Formats: sequence, C-alpha cells, structure tokens
Amino acid sequence: MSNTEVLPLLEPEAPQAVAPCCPPLTERPLSAEEAERTARMFKALADPVRLRLFSAVASYAGGEACVCDISDVGVSQPTVSHHLKKLREAGLLTSERRGTWVYYRVDPAVLAAMGRLLSTDSAA
Amino acid sequence: MSNTEVLPLLEPEAPQAVAPCCPPLTERPLSAEEAERTARMFKALADPVRLRLFSAVASYAGGEACVCDISDVGVSQPTVSHHLKKLREAGLLTSERRGTWVYYRVDPAVLAAMGRLLSTDSAA
Repeated sequence: MSNTEVLPLLEPEAPQAVAPCCPPLTERPLSAEEAERTARMFKALADPVRLRLFSAVASYAGGEACVCDISDVGVSQPTVSHHLKKLREAGLLTSERRGTWVYYRVDPAVLAAMGRLLSTDSAA
Repeated sequence: MSNTEVLPLLEPEAPQAVAPCCPPLTERPLSAEEAERTARMFKALADPVRLRLFSAVASYAGGEACVCDISDVGVSQPTVSHHLKKLREAGLLTSERRGTWVYYRVDPAVLAAMGRLLSTDSAA
C-alpha cells in the first residue's frame, strides 16, 4: 500500500474464464476445442511482465494483492493495468474492488487445473 | 506409421532448453530472468496446433511418436514440422532420428518442471 493512486476498474469479472479445462497433456491428444481454450491460457502467461505480475499476486501474503502492491516490475502503471486485465480476461486472475482499492487474486481451482494439465500422472 | 515420407531434420537437439526452471508461481515473484525463460516456454505452448502436437507426442504409446503418427491435426505436414521445431527449440520436445524416421519425445523432467511451476504446494 505504498501508493495512493487508484486505478479504475471498468469491467466486472471476465466472463470467459478458460483455465479449468482439459485432461493432462500426457493423457490423450487434445481436441481442437480443448487446444483453443488451453492455448488462450498459455498465451496469457507467455509474457514476462504478465508472469511476474501473476506470480506476484499468487505469492502475495493472503493470496491477494492490491495493484499498488505488485507494480514493481519495471513498467508503467498503465502497462501493469493492461497486463492485469489480460490475465483477468483469460480467467487467471479475479478482481474485486473493496473501498478505493482493487484486489487481485488467483483462483486456486484455476491454478489446480493448470497444474493438472501439466501433471505427469499419466506419463509412462 | 501410415506414411512413408521422411521429413528432414536439419538441426541437432535444440541447445537452449528453457523448461526446467523456476519455483512455483505461488512461491514468490519471479525475477526478470526467470520470467523471460518461463514466458518462452508458455509461448511455445500458446498455439492450438502446437498444443495438439505436444499432447499427441506426450500421450503416444511408449512416450514417443514418429512425425507420421501425429500429423492428424488438420494442417499440412510442413506446418507440422514447423511447429515441432518450435517445440524442440523451446526444450519441450526432444527428437532423435532412427533409421529413416524422426521420433519425438517429451522429456519427463521438463514436464515435471512445468507442473511444479503451476503447482499449488505453496499456495495458501
């Protein structure tokens, strides 16, 4: 809470969450539709700044972080907001405004689904 | 082995394997360098065709597949080869020529590292 600027949050929760999907990649070939959904999720994580923001939120004390807590990644605050929005649209983060602040959180179910996708349970 | 065409494999194993890297995203914020490496890995998986090929190789009997076994994803064989090369360059697949065929394999250590990255062990 080192910064008192408030960023506007124009949209409500992203409707097209994509992450909780699909069997482990080692289980069977993905269908075209499964691959589309999963690729969107990986695309959201395929950017270094987004990954740093995502890990900053995911590892923050209490599992959620205010945008002012996680903007220390060497880019401007509008850029931070842009990337957080992309993560939200991909269903990887949820956000909630409480008072003057917007808090971001990683849905544990989403993270579990992503981990399952890459699990080796079905590997030889 | 329904196809007797042989695709050329011009390069040896990709030297810049990137996957076995970095703590779980929930453990602490990634450093800039860790985020760069991890983003490259996710970028390689951020394409539906590559994901289908990756899951086809990863789930194939015996853990490896000939290019002729996995080209049933609705794109041309040169496109398949292009995507397999990208996956190889990202360190997600290894390849080996045996006789006239090139076999692709997912390194279990790579998959385990990816799964660890998305594990929730450190999550609250």
